[in-house]
Amino acid sequence: MATTLLKLTCPDRVGLLARVTGFVAGHGGNLREVHQFTDERAGRFFARLAIDSASLRSNVAGLRSAFEVLADELGAEWSLWSAEEPRRMVVLVSKLGHCLADLLWRWRSGELRCEIPCVISNHEDFREMVEREGIPFRCVPVEAGNKEAAFGELGRILADLSPDLVVLARYMQVLPAHLCEAHHGRILNIHHSFLPSFVGANPYQRAWERGVKLIGATCHYATPDLDQGPIIDQEVTRVEHFHSPEDLVRIGRDCERLALARGVRWHLGGRVWVSGNRTVVFRD
Amino acid sequence: MATTLLKLTCPDRVGLLARVTGFVAGHGGNLREVHQFTDERAGRFFARLAIDSASLRSNVAGLRSAFEVLADELGAEWSLWSAEEPRRMVVLVSKLGHCLADLLWRWRSGELRCEIPCVISNHEDFREMVEREGIPFRCVPVEAGNKEAAFGELGRILADLSPDLVVLARYMQVLPAHLCEAHHGRILNIHHSFLPSFVGANPYQRAWERGVKLIGATCHYATPDLDQGPIIDQEVTRVEHFHSPEDLVRIGRDCERLALARGVRWHLGGRVWVSGNRTVVFRD
Amino acid sequence: MATTLLKLTCPDRVGLLARVTGFVAGHGGNLREVHQFTDERAGRFFARLAIDSASLRSNVAGLRSAFEVLADELGAEWSLWSAEEPRRMVVLVSKLGHCLADLLWRWRSGELRCEIPCVISNHEDFREMVEREGIPFRCVPVEAGNKEAAFGELGRILADLSPDLVVLARYMQVLPAHLCEAHHGRILNIHHSFLPSFVGANPYQRAWERGVKLIGATCHYATPDLDQGPIIDQEVTRVEHFHSPEDLVRIGRDCERLALARGVRWHLGGRVWVSGNRTVVFRD
Amino acid sequence: MATTLLKLTCPDRVGLLARVTGFVAGHGGNLREVHQFTDERAGRFFARLAIDSASLRSNVAGLRSAFEVLADELGAEWSLWSAEEPRRMVVLVSKLGHCLADLLWRWRSGELRCEIPCVISNHEDFREMVEREGIPFRCVPVEAGNKEAAFGELGRILADLSPDLVVLARYMQVLPAHLCEAHHGRILNIHHSFLPSFVGANPYQRAWERGVKLIGATCHYATPDLDQGPIIDQEVTRVEHFHSPEDLVRIGRDCERLALARGVRWHLGGRVWVSGNRTVVFRD
Repeated sequence: MATTLLKLTCPDRVGLLARVTGFVAGHGGNLREVHQFTDERAGRFFARLAIDSASLRSNVAGLRSAFEVLADELGAEWSLWSAEEPRRMVVLVSKLGHCLADLLWRWRSGELRCEIPCVISNHEDFREMVEREGIPFRCVPVEAGNKEAAFGELGRILADLSPDLVVLARYMQVLPAHLCEAHHGRILNIHHSFLPSFVGANPYQRAWERGVKLIGATCHYATPDLDQGPIIDQEVTRVEHFHSPEDLVRIGRDCERLALARGVRWHLGGRVWVSGNRTVVFRD
Repeated sequence: MATTLLKLTCPDRVGLLARVTGFVAGHGGNLREVHQFTDERAGRFFARLAIDSASLRSNVAGLRSAFEVLADELGAEWSLWSAEEPRRMVVLVSKLGHCLADLLWRWRSGELRCEIPCVISNHEDFREMVEREGIPFRCVPVEAGNKEAAFGELGRILADLSPDLVVLARYMQVLPAHLCEAHHGRILNIHHSFLPSFVGANPYQRAWERGVKLIGATCHYATPDLDQGPIIDQEVTRVEHFHSPEDLVRIGRDCERLALARGVRWHLGGRVWVSGNRTVVFRD
Repeated sequence: MATTLLKLTCPDRVGLLARVTGFVAGHGGNLREVHQFTDERAGRFFARLAIDSASLRSNVAGLRSAFEVLADELGAEWSLWSAEEPRRMVVLVSKLGHCLADLLWRWRSGELRCEIPCVISNHEDFREMVEREGIPFRCVPVEAGNKEAAFGELGRILADLSPDLVVLARYMQVLPAHLCEAHHGRILNIHHSFLPSFVGANPYQRAWERGVKLIGATCHYATPDLDQGPIIDQEVTRVEHFHSPEDLVRIGRDCERLALARGVRWHLGGRVWVSGNRTVVFRD
Repeated sequence: MATTLLKLTCPDRVGLLARVTGFVAGHGGNLREVHQFTDERAGRFFARLAIDSASLRSNVAGLRSAFEVLADELGAEWSLWSAEEPRRMVVLVSKLGHCLADLLWRWRSGELRCEIPCVISNHEDFREMVEREGIPFRCVPVEAGNKEAAFGELGRILADLSPDLVVLARYMQVLPAHLCEAHHGRILNIHHSFLPSFVGANPYQRAWERGVKLIGATCHYATPDLDQGPIIDQEVTRVEHFHSPEDLVRIGRDCERLALARGVRWHLGGRVWVSGNRTVVFRD
């Protein structure tokens, strides 16, 4: 059953949801799922509407131009698209492949609806794993002396691909600010700690040293400030005194996979907004 | 900030949410929170709208009579009330008091917005615990020979109290069908297992014998079929081989308290619908 | 750091742990990790000792023959082996590959210390996925008319491989009793429900119909009674009213993967005993 | 069934567990439960032995003086006591009573085996709640100008009571260093965040601002450095964008209660060691 998605945010006012749902009904649209959130502190309204495409009297393009008038009046940031149009996801990885392997498996099994036009790494390790899935693999080495050139090349590749989502699947490089900004709100990172605990390097070792009894992983949007971006999801698991730092690394991998997979799925499904340094997430 | 709540369910059709939210906007109502669910299998629509009372041009009574027209047209079951009007909750308990104590604490601390016109028990054990909170306590003994008379008396007490919610807080008696029906959809039970596992008596012992590695509790609406009613919430916790059946009883108490408290809170907040043998729950 | 493992169970008596640890100390063995459980109901003792191999004055064979005397006196069932000797794990799969893929990934990444001499399926679907890992793949079709012959062949293959562990990784066939018995205590199944709820077919559909708020998966030893064998581990995750049966299938896959992976790891590490229809598990 | 507990830690060496269990066996002691942990990094051994008192040929005093010889040889810190001798727990509280109420309920229901010789508060609010349980209540006001005197008085009261455990059950005062040191390893605090996130004041507000998707509570030993002491247990729960800071406070209370109750139970049961800034916990 084809679905048309409408996602918008605008300043709150009386009658907003009536206007938006009235617009959909005026085009014959049967609503399959509606999520709404009013941030009363910020005076802001967020909504996601899933519409039965077959019930609509216009196609997506027609609906878009019709909605533009209302959206302008409301001062809305919005998008309207067919859930069947695949989104484009680029994955960046270094030498730890568990998140990449997990994403590839979920993608192949249909859990993640997207195209993967490219996997990019600063190492060659996963070329075979990627190419055997029929996905192009690009290696852009990043070394102490060539960082600027490397990130320049990476920037050009990403600009050409114009992805809806860039996933840092344990990509062990800090992206320069110009890349974060060029793809603002579209770069997803998985950090291997329960943020804001253990920002930065070696979080499992530091978690062990602090003696925490739960470890975790955090999926968040990347911003120029390391590990400070808006959080989409987190996952934790219990550990005990007998677990070594190496055990935490092993156990934590499952947290990383789960938190990242959910973040990716929700971003692709148009279920996430950034609101200040927080996110609004309509989980599925 | 005073809030008016509108809760309705009706057959699904195009434009439904627009009609309902349009009605609210037409009375000046600013929507604070809207939850909606369309059960596509059943062709049924469920919604809960929280409206800023101060923004409304009518009081609750006026709004009710205005909504009646629309509700009739939509074939809706509905209710509309002020969130500040306290709901009435009656608690039934036997000789295990952890759920009762937990509810009383949450009620006193303001977590549960309701009046408790009475706690009823088939034993005297908790009279003092209840009365010192300023709540009337009634003892209705239920013994092998007097069940019919006892449940007759219980039925009369409940009829007089006309509660919005009857909580079986480890009330160790099976309610007769006539009582379940008289308060259909308003009797909440906590069963000390992860249903549908271990329906009936001694679930912790049976969980131990089966060697499960997680135990749990289930908050559900009571129906004449023991432990078969619609589930509102469940809670689980991990156990290990070294836990005895007595340990499971101890550990499970926390599951019972948490699952019951959430179910009670959501029922009181108008966040639960029964749909067939399933529930729709707009969690908070 | 090489490790020697000693695993034993015997009737409980005074001084048992002193005897066993005294034996190890008498051979110079430094204990790295000791787990012990006394089942007071059954009057049975269970222990697992991890010994620093470098500290031992005998090799494994020498230690084994020395221990035999004590073990006979104690009436123990026991095994003693080098943690570095790889265990042999055979995986059986049908047409759902998420558990197989997960096990292969964990095996390749070193999380599961074992050899995989063969993956066996009743379908050809995963031949490439298996063979590209350098693992032999055998297809033994099981059809309505040929079940006896097929399981005869399967039995011969397994007998030849003499595995330490046979994993039913969503193998959609019920194993005949003679196979369960031939590999008693060494066949691990993953069932896609939170047992004992939803034994048998279509558990996700039935979980949806019952309206449970948590779904799960159970890793257990296979016995001739379907889904009745001793449970090793279980995993659950929260679901809501808006999740369809298909969503439960998707969400449940992560539970299945996690519960199975832990069960496999603990069995391979000699951390699991069957005691009646319960298990003793020294988690790591 | 009466139980004698032996708890010890000492430098690791070959044959340690054999020596200790041999000692117990030499006195006829039947071991009910043995927990052992060797911290290989620190070269330290930790053990807790639960012995069937009826099987012992000596009483606790006799066993203690017999064990002293071995303990000296091993360089052990140790204690040996009857599980039936009640430990003494003093609770400190300010104006938030949920943790106190929870501890009182668990104590009254037999979940926590201890005496409570006194509850101390800097406010009068909970006098009735405490005294109706038959527990003495002391009010020691702490105000801006009188802190030194107040903590002097508190110190004298605690010194008189010589408690095995002092619980800071949301006691909103930072204890001075001399009190932390006087009861080193015997003061348990509950911090209302998932440490090391949100050390210090207003953690729920700060968690909301950071937009975390899980909130939690941490039970740890108090040291002079605020919220830096060794962690015993942590508990988390999921939150969403629609939860306000006030919701986090409400939801977090359940985490606080659970983490604190477990920490208290394990401390009272002799199941916790401090090892550097980490803890060894033999959970039950």
